Amino acid sequence: MTTVYKIGGKILDDEALLKDFCRSFAAAPGPKLLVHGGNVLASRVQEALGVTPVRIDGRRVTDAAALQVVTMVYAGWYNKHVVALLQAEGCNAIGLSGSDGAVITASRRPPITVADGSTVDFGFVGDVTPSSIRVPFVNGLMDQGLVPVFCAINHDGRGQLLNTNADTVAAALASALGARLVYCFEQDGVLADPTDPSSVIPQIDCAIYERLKAFGAVSGGMLPKLDTAFVALRSGVPEVFIGKTQIRL
Amino acid sequence: MTTVYKIGGKILDDEALLKDFCRSFAAAPGPKLLVHGGNVLASRVQEALGVTPVRIDGRRVTDAAALQVVTMVYAGWYNKHVVALLQAEGCNAIGLSGSDGAVITASRRPPITVADGSTVDFGFVGDVTPSSIRVPFVNGLMDQGLVPVFCAINHDGRGQLLNTNADTVAAALASALGARLVYCFEQDGVLADPTDPSSVIPQIDCAIYERLKAFGAVSGGMLPKLDTAFVALRSGVPEVFIGKTQIRL
Repeated sequence: MTTVYKIGGKILDDEALLKDFCRSFAAAPGPKLLVHGGNVLASRVQEALGVTPVRIDGRRVTDAAALQVVTMVYAGWYNKHVVALLQAEGCNAIGLSGSDGAVITASRRPPITVADGSTVDFGFVGDVTPSSIRVPFVNGLMDQGLVPVFCAINHDGRGQLLNTNADTVAAALASALGARLVYCFEQDGVLADPTDPSSVIPQIDCAIYERLKAFGAVSGGMLPKLDTAFVALRSGVPEVFIGKTQIRL
Repeated sequence: MTTVYKIGGKILDDEALLKDFCRSFAAAPGPKLLVHGGNVLASRVQEALGVTPVRIDGRRVTDAAALQVVTMVYAGWYNKHVVALLQAEGCNAIGLSGSDGAVITASRRPPITVADGSTVDFGFVGDVTPSSIRVPFVNGLMDQGLVPVFCAINHDGRGQLLNTNADTVAAALASALGARLVYCFEQDGVLADPTDPSSVIPQIDCAIYERLKAFGAVSGGMLPKLDTAFVALRSGVPEVFIGKTQIRL
């Protein structure tokens, strides 16, 4: 079965962790794809360029200047750095944005009403669903022995690049391909107590998740990740794993 | 016959020129590839990040910080922006660095002795020849109807990205593919008098080029471009055109 792996900024921003990950990923058996984010460096570059990063509900607001930065960081530095590291491990990776081969066409997110009742335009931000993916193109690359590496920069098909959420891109790819989904990050899994790394919750179903939310045990970036995971499970993804990759390799 | 087009920073940095170019390029008949640079924005981002751009003989010196910037700008912003614009024009472009599918493997340039006798290490800079190109992979993409768009960021196959000269990458691709080579830029061609846009030299052979150099009529960035053009002509490229694209479309 195909596996979609997703890594985020904390792995990408730590050269030793990233090299470890690339080695494990290259050695992982079976068809596989990688999706990555990269917000740690993006925030740093934005700051240096005088672009103030704004986040609402854990999601970045993307004006034209911010779009240029995230495209530089995600599609440029991280995508090519990861692809070069994978090539060195004998993994024939190919880096892709959604515009490359028109593989992912996102739709620009309309302004939404947030918790306090105000309207927020997320700017050049796109939403992606399983039907956004050009599946035959992805399968064609994999049939040639290539390993697609997706940054979460996509396009609208009319010339506009759009910033999309890497967790959502990974979930959409897994759903479209009927693949397992592995969210890799620096912890062993979702923690019952965020201050205790050993408090990993071995399995989470909807009921447990609702209770965890009610108790405030999961918060921040983990909330949308788990929401996305449950959407993926409801749309054909057989299994979602959240934690250090090594466990499943 | 396949045509390799190359565009530089001045077209890339002018949104109206770039859109014009993308429209012309998308409409150009026959198999085609695009190679782009992007040094105008790269210098601007380097400055903002406090990285001082250094050039020797028209070529950038690339330390680790500069490599990160050029990879962000060339492989990230420009590559994906151009691909998205081409997709909007119905051209099924796919952006590539050399690490993607291991399509171009560069060799790191050894330190060289320059005009004043001193030794210069160009840093993370690679050299590319026709044998650096994985031709079957490029042809395979074009056979699928894809139009490859190369940034001049390549890799050494051992995990290291390398900055390469976009003119040289275009010449190496043209030579490896037996393709025509078109250097597109904002002037109508090579000028006998750089201050007079109408002084285009209609045709340049080796003898004329040597005389132009002796009189100081060509200088700056045009020198390595013409040198590269003559190397390309001697290594199987049937024709090199330097000037505004529209002329040959």
